[in-house]
Amino acid sequence: MSIEKPSLPSGTRDFGAATMIRRNFIFDTIKATFKRFGFTPLETPAMEKLSVLTGKYGDEGDQLIFKVLNSGDFLKDVQADDLAKGYRPLTRKVSEKALRYDLTVPFARYVVMNRNDISFPFKRYQIQPVWRADRPQKGRYREFYQCDADVVGTDSLICEAEIVLMMHEVLHNLGIKSFQIKINNRKILAGLAEAIGAAGREAELCVAIDKLDKIGQQAVEKELLERGFSAEAIEKLAPIFSVQGDNTALLTQIKTFLESSEQGQKGLEELNAVFDYLAQFGYDASAHVAFDVTLARGLSYYTGAIFEVKALGVSIGSISGGGRYDNLTGMFGLPNVSGVGFSFGVDRIYDVMEELQLFPASQTTTTQVLISNFDAQAEKYALPLLAKIRAAGICAELFPESSKLKKQMTYANNKQIPFVLLIGSNEMETGLLTLKNMTSGEQQNLAIDQVIEQLKA
Amino acid sequence: MSIEKPSLPSGTRDFGAATMIRRNFIFDTIKATFKRFGFTPLETPAMEKLSVLTGKYGDEGDQLIFKVLNSGDFLKDVQADDLAKGYRPLTRKVSEKALRYDLTVPFARYVVMNRNDISFPFKRYQIQPVWRADRPQKGRYREFYQCDADVVGTDSLICEAEIVLMMHEVLHNLGIKSFQIKINNRKILAGLAEAIGAAGREAELCVAIDKLDKIGQQAVEKELLERGFSAEAIEKLAPIFSVQGDNTALLTQIKTFLESSEQGQKGLEELNAVFDYLAQFGYDASAHVAFDVTLARGLSYYTGAIFEVKALGVSIGSISGGGRYDNLTGMFGLPNVSGVGFSFGVDRIYDVMEELQLFPASQTTTTQVLISNFDAQAEKYALPLLAKIRAAGICAELFPESSKLKKQMTYANNKQIPFVLLIGSNEMETGLLTLKNMTSGEQQNLAIDQVIEQLKA
Repeated sequence: MSIEKPSLPSGTRDFGAATMIRRNFIFDTIKATFKRFGFTPLETPAMEKLSVLTGKYGDEGDQLIFKVLNSGDFLKDVQADDLAKGYRPLTRKVSEKALRYDLTVPFARYVVMNRNDISFPFKRYQIQPVWRADRPQKGRYREFYQCDADVVGTDSLICEAEIVLMMHEVLHNLGIKSFQIKINNRKILAGLAEAIGAAGREAELCVAIDKLDKIGQQAVEKELLERGFSAEAIEKLAPIFSVQGDNTALLTQIKTFLESSEQGQKGLEELNAVFDYLAQFGYDASAHVAFDVTLARGLSYYTGAIFEVKALGVSIGSISGGGRYDNLTGMFGLPNVSGVGFSFGVDRIYDVMEELQLFPASQTTTTQVLISNFDAQAEKYALPLLAKIRAAGICAELFPESSKLKKQMTYANNKQIPFVLLIGSNEMETGLLTLKNMTSGEQQNLAIDQVIEQLKA
Repeated sequence: MSIEKPSLPSGTRDFGAATMIRRNFIFDTIKATFKRFGFTPLETPAMEKLSVLTGKYGDEGDQLIFKVLNSGDFLKDVQADDLAKGYRPLTRKVSEKALRYDLTVPFARYVVMNRNDISFPFKRYQIQPVWRADRPQKGRYREFYQCDADVVGTDSLICEAEIVLMMHEVLHNLGIKSFQIKINNRKILAGLAEAIGAAGREAELCVAIDKLDKIGQQAVEKELLERGFSAEAIEKLAPIFSVQGDNTALLTQIKTFLESSEQGQKGLEELNAVFDYLAQFGYDASAHVAFDVTLARGLSYYTGAIFEVKALGVSIGSISGGGRYDNLTGMFGLPNVSGVGFSFGVDRIYDVMEELQLFPASQTTTTQVLISNFDAQAEKYALPLLAKIRAAGICAELFPESSKLKKQMTYANNKQIPFVLLIGSNEMETGLLTLKNMTSGEQQNLAIDQVIEQLKA
């Protein structure tokens, strides 16, 4: 029998020990902050009913949903002439489940299904993988984790202020000291549209403006023209690309620009309230938070504040973002549930931390000490010591077979275990064990209690 | 537009806050032990190539694998006459990926793909969901977590002894004090077959004996007869159903029974070595570990020790199990990699703990304190206090809108937040805040630093 060399589906990854330990550091940091702010965990199944997912991400998104073939005879409802109609209409006949595409739609489904048991405002966090049949490329995977936190059932702007605090706390605790939290408000964008005489067309305006960072002002203006905005409107818009100063200065300039727009004024009020709350929290917003009137973000369901976070000094896209929405659960028949949410992009945070060398010295294990194993007698001698070390809460292992020193040292080095406890005939005679520091090479002769003390330090 | 009421795919579950907190307690306890024994984390993708999974679980297992429909035009390789051939041959044409069915096959794939980078002996743990298209029923789900730990690349029986220690430590730390770890060895079962004159037929013998607990000796003997074992062989087997005494006594009786079988003697030697190692670790095996010559376990790939753990005093199946295998990676062309592994069944452990009321007082949050919010002034007053409480590492929230006391108390009660900090005009005047203990109803007037002290205690 010839055996196929096994491989991974494209766009998916194994995470070995070294990567897992670093990723867990990121996840744990994020979770600790979510908890400190009163968010509770939720997990939903990987598979959702196809009917729950389709129609929520646009036609392009629907195509990227991984569908699961019905189990058993998936052809039982398929007729010969169904084939001719093409794969799209056939999909629903052979598949009624699919892999979740994000955590937002499953969350909305959960809220609707459990609305009678949930105490609102409902603060939940959710950290799970999602799947998208995107074309894999550098930094884009078909399976990746999302880390979402949302509050639904309140329109309090304290939530927006707390999102800024959480973004700051997480990045600070990860060691990412240089970052910018951009903030804007969809109502301000609606106000812009109104102010330039294109009321109601803020969605198109957003799509174009959203590209400002990538393509520049001229190209954005060209796109707006192509989208049917008048030359006059585009000219009117021009001043917003050249506003400058600190947040207070920006707010003043935009306030004048939006004088005629009620929506725009409302957006500015909301933004001011968020800044006021931040000040009241004792948070110095000037250091990291920047009002950016051109921040648009693609997602159409945002209706109030929008956020985007980038690490400075690296050219990696946004590592966190979010916004307020007024009708998340409307898709499942429960209208008027206002909420605000945000998420962290763990893969990008990982890349930032690696590029800035922010991970603690690379480690591929949590094991603190390896006990050597040279012969049956030393092995026997080691077992009660191993039990004692572990009972002290220290992660420890015994090399499971009698082997040459070199093999055991290589094992410890590869696994980056910081200490090796050597037990030879001398050590067994005197009870003084040799503790070798694998980084410095230094060796000490210590009784077991001293070894434990040393390892705990 | 009529909107479908959303629901979950059958056999899948949402895990809300209360359940998540309890499940995380179980996961964290298991992980802490895996780490203390030197195991490192691994995660593999939810989707594997269908070719990696099929043929590993028998024909019945293959049918239970969830297949993922190829993205894009999944019909592009399908001809009209393919339909007539039925769904089985068509599966491979419309699906090349599938959801993992267990963690063992992905682990074997990982070892084979990374054999040149791995330091053996390789100790990995893996805690991830798996999917099976089983008929859902009480306690059986289509998505559930497995918690596996394996050591591959050594045949040291220290690993077997450490598995016993880990099983014990996890259950002890979960508060499950009354449990039994059954142990046997496949070579002893092979020896039994040999001793009754049915050499080489231990697989069939195992399938029948495995049911002893459920159907009793008579039914097992009937099944053996039906499977073509001779009446003489069955009669010869009878004594093993009535052996009794402690482990030493049992080992002696079985040793006599297996006198003529070399394999059987080897199995007994291995088992004795495991008991010796346990004694050397200072572990009293007599309290929880029982040699059971009729323990067979279904999995055909075990070749040495086998384990099974049950909680006593509840009628819930085994909560942990495992065994040694000699050729796990052979399926992917890498022969002779011996290993031993075991896993915990988190859903069953959850059920045991619930039935025995072992979970700490039920909690639906990690939040320690809710700050009340009665009006704009109190809200403003509360924000710096909230920041201070959180900076002390305490999980805290402010009710995000000014509301009636009753609504806020209900929120705290539903979320089982243990303390509420009440801020009214008196409190703002004096700086002495009212801290209400939600369990006892007791109220104290405290300065903010005292509140923090109290919450930290």
